[in-house]
Amino acid sequence: ASLAGHLKLGKLVFLYDDNKISIDGSTDIAFTEDRGARFEAYGWQVLRVEDGNDVGAVDQAIAAARADGRPSLIVCRTQIGFGLPTKQNTSDAHGEPPGVDELAAAKERLGWPSEPWFYIPEEVLRHFRRAVAAGDQLERAWQEKMGRYAEEFPAQAADLQRRYAGDLPAGWDADLPVFTPDSKGSATRASSGKVLDRLGGIIPELIGGSADLTPSNKTRFEGVHDFQAGSEQGRYLRFGVREHGMGAIVNGLAYHGGMVPFGGTFLVFSDYMRASVRLSALAGLGSIWVYTHDSIGLGEDGPTHQPVEHLAALRAIPNLTVIRPSDGNEVREAWKVAIEHRDRPTALVLSRQGVSNLDRAVYASAENLARGAYVLADIGGAPQILLVATGSEVDLIVEAGERLAGEGVGVRLVSFPSWELFERQDGEYQLSVFPPFLTKRLGIEAAVEQGWSRWLGDRGMMISVEKFGASAPYQTIFDKYGLTSERVYESARELLADE
Amino acid sequence: ASLAGHLKLGKLVFLYDDNKISIDGSTDIAFTEDRGARFEAYGWQVLRVEDGNDVGAVDQAIAAARADGRPSLIVCRTQIGFGLPTKQNTSDAHGEPPGVDELAAAKERLGWPSEPWFYIPEEVLRHFRRAVAAGDQLERAWQEKMGRYAEEFPAQAADLQRRYAGDLPAGWDADLPVFTPDSKGSATRASSGKVLDRLGGIIPELIGGSADLTPSNKTRFEGVHDFQAGSEQGRYLRFGVREHGMGAIVNGLAYHGGMVPFGGTFLVFSDYMRASVRLSALAGLGSIWVYTHDSIGLGEDGPTHQPVEHLAALRAIPNLTVIRPSDGNEVREAWKVAIEHRDRPTALVLSRQGVSNLDRAVYASAENLARGAYVLADIGGAPQILLVATGSEVDLIVEAGERLAGEGVGVRLVSFPSWELFERQDGEYQLSVFPPFLTKRLGIEAAVEQGWSRWLGDRGMMISVEKFGASAPYQTIFDKYGLTSERVYESARELLADE
Repeated sequence: ASLAGHLKLGKLVFLYDDNKISIDGSTDIAFTEDRGARFEAYGWQVLRVEDGNDVGAVDQAIAAARADGRPSLIVCRTQIGFGLPTKQNTSDAHGEPPGVDELAAAKERLGWPSEPWFYIPEEVLRHFRRAVAAGDQLERAWQEKMGRYAEEFPAQAADLQRRYAGDLPAGWDADLPVFTPDSKGSATRASSGKVLDRLGGIIPELIGGSADLTPSNKTRFEGVHDFQAGSEQGRYLRFGVREHGMGAIVNGLAYHGGMVPFGGTFLVFSDYMRASVRLSALAGLGSIWVYTHDSIGLGEDGPTHQPVEHLAALRAIPNLTVIRPSDGNEVREAWKVAIEHRDRPTALVLSRQGVSNLDRAVYASAENLARGAYVLADIGGAPQILLVATGSEVDLIVEAGERLAGEGVGVRLVSFPSWELFERQDGEYQLSVFPPFLTKRLGIEAAVEQGWSRWLGDRGMMISVEKFGASAPYQTIFDKYGLTSERVYESARELLADE
Repeated sequence: ASLAGHLKLGKLVFLYDDNKISIDGSTDIAFTEDRGARFEAYGWQVLRVEDGNDVGAVDQAIAAARADGRPSLIVCRTQIGFGLPTKQNTSDAHGEPPGVDELAAAKERLGWPSEPWFYIPEEVLRHFRRAVAAGDQLERAWQEKMGRYAEEFPAQAADLQRRYAGDLPAGWDADLPVFTPDSKGSATRASSGKVLDRLGGIIPELIGGSADLTPSNKTRFEGVHDFQAGSEQGRYLRFGVREHGMGAIVNGLAYHGGMVPFGGTFLVFSDYMRASVRLSALAGLGSIWVYTHDSIGLGEDGPTHQPVEHLAALRAIPNLTVIRPSDGNEVREAWKVAIEHRDRPTALVLSRQGVSNLDRAVYASAENLARGAYVLADIGGAPQILLVATGSEVDLIVEAGERLAGEGVGVRLVSFPSWELFERQDGEYQLSVFPPFLTKRLGIEAAVEQGWSRWLGDRGMMISVEKFGASAPYQTIFDKYGLTSERVYESARELLADE
């Protein structure tokens, strides 16, 4: 509401059903603020209708709301359970069916016949029948207008139709950044920024922003302008420190259609917007959630800012695709998946700290990311042990694996950026990555273990983080928490020695 | 803030550091509401200090705030990075260290010596030294007052000291409700209400409420009065529809000490208060979260109200004890654990629908709940298969298990109300419940599977809910989603037939 006031979203009209009853009883027991004054403070127009059953007064208020440049709140004083002889104005009317006697008495009060039980007054029926013809006419008028537009501006009209059909521009993914091998590398959030720079130019319907973490999330792409009151053509949204609001707005943009919307914040703050993320998954919306600073590796900000349980918590949400790419090329592929998923949400989980860009001439192509998990390489001979990681920990298994291979151990290296993408593969592919005979499986992720047993099996071992983080530079905290290639090496040796 | 205004919490004084800078830049790009007017709408006193560096003016405002019966917001206009030559009033001052040059120049502007680098002006030192003596005197005065109080009211003083020490009243758990065997049983939220009725009378420091779901959560215990402005002795809090606020308030009560605080809502709405639940775990607070309507079994309210991923999401939080009791006696034991945990939070996860109260003469005592998982019974001979469940699904394994036992199959029935309590047991106990030889393990829970593989092993099988729910009466939706004793029986037969 605060942001709507700031942006002067004059098309927003809210009807507030002010019946002064909540489940616990009168709102007087908990909710006595001046709601109208609050919305005025947000920069809204506030209108009042003394009797919410007065259709004419409500109509007038809506007209006044639409005539104003500000968003409007219409406070309609109503009676909950209107007409029920004993339940009107009680909390029972919220949660309990009124029952036959109450309904019969209510109908009597309205002067309605007792039969038929489900009675539709003639006046109501006529009103709704009129709506059919009116809607028909409006649609025809719109189609004609669109036809004239298509004649005059054929390219623009075709583009608009493409967007609303949910199709992407032809060849949109043909020329995205390729990251060359680099052992110093860069943070996956930085690679994400580079991919977004390109996507923003290619996909005109890409729109999004950050919850006041733009410089950290790297979400503001090249050439974009801010969406503000008076510059509504801008495609970058300044959500302010409002994760929950951002989630709701991005979902709203997805519902509207014609746009590919995203929102960014720190992974730990996904907690503030969980209800919206859940809704995007439940409703099958193509919302894209950009979550940077994805582990204790974010460093000095300490445990309040360091996610440890958030990967598990997001993976738990049905229909949400969670992707934690390991390097620049996986980031590019992750964005491709997110953009392609127009009927389900994607969470991109990105590091603050630098990771190396793997040499894809040596290791398998990052395009395999779309399959969720893939074999980076089998090194040192036939695999005796499988090392698996996601995101910033892939560097650690590669380093430890190469050391083991140098000592004559056969090692399979697996990058596992997305459980959900892997779950959608057929059984044959799944078994080709995690073959049943390869029971010595060592996983590492800078997060809680929850759920990993499923992939590692009874003979597997996991290096995880089972407590909250601490404030320290990235390398110190990774060392102290045992997230090192040395620990991977030693654990692998332990597992190999196991009978 | 809205509730503080409603409750007229006059002791609350907030100093708002109004520097008009956020990470993305000027607050003008996203946050232009009239903050003062908003807080006035909440029923707060709003005071303004034009120069936040004017210590005298801030002092005066605090005095005025304390003199008023309303909570107060003191809006202090400040300059972020005050004195830094190039970074003052910029977002850089928020996230980046100023560096040596900026600091040296700032010191010069203040007329401070360049050496020592970490310079404490004499005036500041004197001020803080005075605080030591003043604090000492205040503490002595309080001790004397407490001494006089203890002489005049020895019982009350002893009780107060007991509460602040975090000790519970002697024998508090001696006479809690015992639930007799009953195949019709009752919802675990109803049993929770009965246990709370008793606890409320025995533990005077028990205080809590619900986020406007009192009749559903069954959190309002016998004889309690509402906490309201003018009746601050009340121990029942009407939080309103405010899960996040409730979480913060319950944590605040726990931080204050001398109280055993709880807050209730539907399990699905734990999403709205996740940041507070996380904080309770991170800070080691004895907050008690009461979450009812714990699965798709809640029925007609449909998928927006039906938790499926929330058990996994809560279990992922380190240091939080999640308990999903299966019947009235487990509910009693769960409350005992929650009350005893004064240094860590507990989430009690309770059903809307009825469950049977097991005959504890036939099945093991519910006191075993404290161990997290326990063998209800081995039936039908030496165990060939292990059936495990939590909460409302325990009825299903008991029914299926008895059928299998009747057919000559050796069945171990395990109730597993809390992973975290079980993880704290020694290895010997853990192995006694889940012996390695018993690899045929069938689990059932009305929630996502995530994490269960760890307990069920490579040869185990899980009946879970891997999608969002649907609106239907409890029994219909449980049938449609395969949460039935028939399915448990058939899956067990399948597992038993497995080589």
